[in-house]
Amino acid sequence: MTQAERWMLPDGIAEILPADAKRVETLRRNLLDLYHRWGYEMIIPPMVEFTDSLLIGMGRDVDLRTFRVTDQLSGRSLGIRADITPQAARIDSHSFPRSGANRLCYAGQVLYTRPRAPMGPRAPIQIGAELYGVESLQGDIEVISLMLETLSTAGIREIHLDLGHVAIFRSLAEAAALDSEQQAALTALLQSKAVADIERWVEENVADAQAASWLRGLPRLAGGSECLARARELFASGPQALVSALEELQLVADAVARRYPQVTLFFDLGEMRGYDYETGLVFAAYSPGHGQALANGGRYNGIGAVFGRDRAATGFSTDLAAINALGQNGAPEAGAILAPASDCAELWRTVGALRASGEVVISAMPGEGSDDTETPARCDRELVQEGGTWVVKPRS
Amino acid sequence: MTQAERWMLPDGIAEILPADAKRVETLRRNLLDLYHRWGYEMIIPPMVEFTDSLLIGMGRDVDLRTFRVTDQLSGRSLGIRADITPQAARIDSHSFPRSGANRLCYAGQVLYTRPRAPMGPRAPIQIGAELYGVESLQGDIEVISLMLETLSTAGIREIHLDLGHVAIFRSLAEAAALDSEQQAALTALLQSKAVADIERWVEENVADAQAASWLRGLPRLAGGSECLARARELFASGPQALVSALEELQLVADAVARRYPQVTLFFDLGEMRGYDYETGLVFAAYSPGHGQALANGGRYNGIGAVFGRDRAATGFSTDLAAINALGQNGAPEAGAILAPASDCAELWRTVGALRASGEVVISAMPGEGSDDTETPARCDRELVQEGGTWVVKPRS
Repeated sequence: MTQAERWMLPDGIAEILPADAKRVETLRRNLLDLYHRWGYEMIIPPMVEFTDSLLIGMGRDVDLRTFRVTDQLSGRSLGIRADITPQAARIDSHSFPRSGANRLCYAGQVLYTRPRAPMGPRAPIQIGAELYGVESLQGDIEVISLMLETLSTAGIREIHLDLGHVAIFRSLAEAAALDSEQQAALTALLQSKAVADIERWVEENVADAQAASWLRGLPRLAGGSECLARARELFASGPQALVSALEELQLVADAVARRYPQVTLFFDLGEMRGYDYETGLVFAAYSPGHGQALANGGRYNGIGAVFGRDRAATGFSTDLAAINALGQNGAPEAGAILAPASDCAELWRTVGALRASGEVVISAMPGEGSDDTETPARCDRELVQEGGTWVVKPRS
Repeated sequence: MTQAERWMLPDGIAEILPADAKRVETLRRNLLDLYHRWGYEMIIPPMVEFTDSLLIGMGRDVDLRTFRVTDQLSGRSLGIRADITPQAARIDSHSFPRSGANRLCYAGQVLYTRPRAPMGPRAPIQIGAELYGVESLQGDIEVISLMLETLSTAGIREIHLDLGHVAIFRSLAEAAALDSEQQAALTALLQSKAVADIERWVEENVADAQAASWLRGLPRLAGGSECLARARELFASGPQALVSALEELQLVADAVARRYPQVTLFFDLGEMRGYDYETGLVFAAYSPGHGQALANGGRYNGIGAVFGRDRAATGFSTDLAAINALGQNGAPEAGAILAPASDCAELWRTVGALRASGEVVISAMPGEGSDDTETPARCDRELVQEGGTWVVKPRS
């Protein structure tokens, strides 16, 4: 490997340099403060765990995305986390259990073997919040609200909220007696939105006429709030779980619309993409002109069962660096004060006092302060000695 | 694997739960703000890179501590970072070069295959600062100062600063014509402080009488500032690099003592432990009663050469969680306000205004607010409706 190559980063692995890092750090603080004010308490889970603790029936996608190494101390398989949510669920189940609602939040890098979307990041900074122990739709409404507040805190003005419910596809698959292989095939077709292919597949695979008619209708049930009314009509005699799912969607949509009238609501009842372990209402936020979801989440009741505690759960997360890049947050950088290279004790005290007051003071290294180095460019002021004391003067 | 085991974490891998996480996060912000005020700019390097970029002549220890995985996209070896310093050096060399001094800082988890000390952490949160492009001792003094400010910001009152210089052992090893195998053997003996074993080893391995006498004196050169005077005497006719190293130690010690008279200075001229890639002055901070160094660093000029830029470099880092656990920082948790479960639009506006003012407001989920769940215990106040408006009242 040549020198010229040695500084290269792997595809999908990014570093964040000073100007951006400052904005990312500011947004990180603002978001963790937001979650704190909503009663969500921060946890800092480790970036590695036993693979058995990270992959808890989370679906094949998370499994494939997780890097594994061998623990030299135990000989067991370790996973580098590809998702912080199962860590939060483990903590709710065991390390930090509460009898009632448990509100947790986090921010940290995760790592994917392969990006979730072509050219996507493989080491995003996942930030999010999880709510445990709440069966009620009030919980879904709270986490959706907090996701919307997250994006507006990031300075993202125009938000489209997609709502869906995994019970819709699952109850129709059950009504059509699809085995798991058939479900996977139909899911893939639904994701591709290839209506003609779906109709052909249903004709060949589903004997029951009623179930076939329901499944054929599914890809068309995407759009604004009128789509819920159409669904209620189409599935009027449908499975109870489906009818309940539609009621839940309506209640949540109404509550969100009351709180955030500026948010555009979409429904996609055949949508299955990006959900790994969800069990109920699912949601994703989009920004016009940006194809990938900016944030998503949903209900994943029962995930804690493998840790010995079967609880209601819902939550959301997003990629801090991605929403920072999209949003308009962050103030222009304030200037700095250059302090000359000097041993003077009085200068050291003055510099300390200025820093304590919040000023950026850069102690010049020998040679700095002349115009042939870059550092002083940040400095719009400098410390100069006048009559025995040090004073701040504008730099000429 | 049983349920009861599934929540277990690997040895040396810790999670940080809410009360501690809040203190860790507060300290993290205070330290990054401290570095900012000293002109150090934040970078956020990724947790994984090509192994070739992470392991750049950094010594066998870092190499053995680094987990490796195979990149599915390139087929090349990736390393999970065990140290952020080489990432900062790469950024100084290529992504964010400056013609003069470059001051960078960072905070993030790193991962070790094995702990650095028995029972030590394997996923510490490394936080630190690096200064590039400054050959002068002013640079060493600045980073030592910033390390001491770091520990006092963490609330650690009593600090012992150990100073050493890798040129001392290296120039003596050269004078004694030790090959690399012999150097490794003597280094191990010096670390064990087994004076009798060292004397026997020197007698058997070093022919030159003068060099042998110097090496035998080395383990006794540990202690307060008088030890520098003894060293100057012993090595009066010693190699020039050694004499210069002693001068550097004296100058830096004097400058640090002037700035931080409350810090106790120690010198350990035969100390070689814990340094992987240093080239000059090295330092570590200790707290009485705590065997491991709390923070350490040193000069590592030339590390950027593999990236095409050979620069002066010095810096320090510490484990955020460890110094948080030792220090007395953090204020008692303020109370929270419980908001009843209600759809009332006026309540939603009141809750938003309280949160915007910095209050923690927890929206009660159905069933919460009664005494049989835990969440309300944090709430010392609650929102109640009085004459059409919502007001905050103490909770009875």
